[in-house]
Amino acid sequence: MILYSSLILIIVDMTQQQQQDCILCKIALKKIPAHIIIENDKAMAFLDAYPLSKGHTLIIPKSHYSKIQELDEDSSQSLFNILWKITNPVEKASGVNSSTLAIHNGKEAGQEIPHVHIHIIPRNRRDGAGPVHSMFKNKPNISSYEMSSIVEEIKKSLT
Amino acid sequence: MILYSSLILIIVDMTQQQQQDCILCKIALKKIPAHIIIENDKAMAFLDAYPLSKGHTLIIPKSHYSKIQELDEDSSQSLFNILWKITNPVEKASGVNSSTLAIHNGKEAGQEIPHVHIHIIPRNRRDGAGPVHSMFKNKPNISSYEMSSIVEEIKKSLT
Repeated sequence: MILYSSLILIIVDMTQQQQQDCILCKIALKKIPAHIIIENDKAMAFLDAYPLSKGHTLIIPKSHYSKIQELDEDSSQSLFNILWKITNPVEKASGVNSSTLAIHNGKEAGQEIPHVHIHIIPRNRRDGAGPVHSMFKNKPNISSYEMSSIVEEIKKSLT
Repeated sequence: MILYSSLILIIVDMTQQQQQDCILCKIALKKIPAHIIIENDKAMAFLDAYPLSKGHTLIIPKSHYSKIQELDEDSSQSLFNILWKITNPVEKASGVNSSTLAIHNGKEAGQEIPHVHIHIIPRNRRDGAGPVHSMFKNKPNISSYEMSSIVEEIKKSLT
């Protein structure tokens, strides 16, 4: 009976941490293979199977979170610690001096798999891609007064 | 004499931490104004003066580092802690559910000011910008064998 209850607890815990149909959860659980670079308790890095350039790397939390604000502070720290640690090795191994580091944080930002993943995309002078600014055709005109209002709004949610 | 030596030490320390002609160093030192949202000992967040969308925010280390691999571990942690903390408030205040989080890590990635800055760019369905993948016209074909070699190269630099 005790064993049975424990099993239920484990199953409940698993469904909270991982989603059955999520490909990044499956990579975290090593149910599907990946070219893994490094991992810690809460996060791991591996090569993107659909690279935009040689060395294109993804870093994910091992548990299922859609957006970075859903992570607890400790998981966030583990995730970004890997980013800090591997960016130079990824650039060196890819033979470049630069990389685009990006997160599509939500559907409207182009996120296709709703499991946080940081892209490290090695860049070179001849790849034809620019800064992320090149994606935006229309730039808004925002007055200094509006900027102050936005800051006040942001601060309200911070407290 | 002791006071004089201390002054020299402070000046040397300042030149190591900040660069005189760097606009982001000037914002960190509050020599030029910005719409500041939050700061800690080592990092700060403020609205981008040339926003790609309403609420476009930058997060910088207060000291001058060109790329994230130059930061010490503690500074990196302070920087990304602010990102984790403010992404939701920035999205909420901007009235959106998504954002593009990006760093141009080096000149070939489109970095114009060589002082690390994380962009939080609020996104909506009608802004016409896609995922960062839209910037790359040519995607390379990399074999599984090559992927394994790259991982080995990255791991070599990690140890």
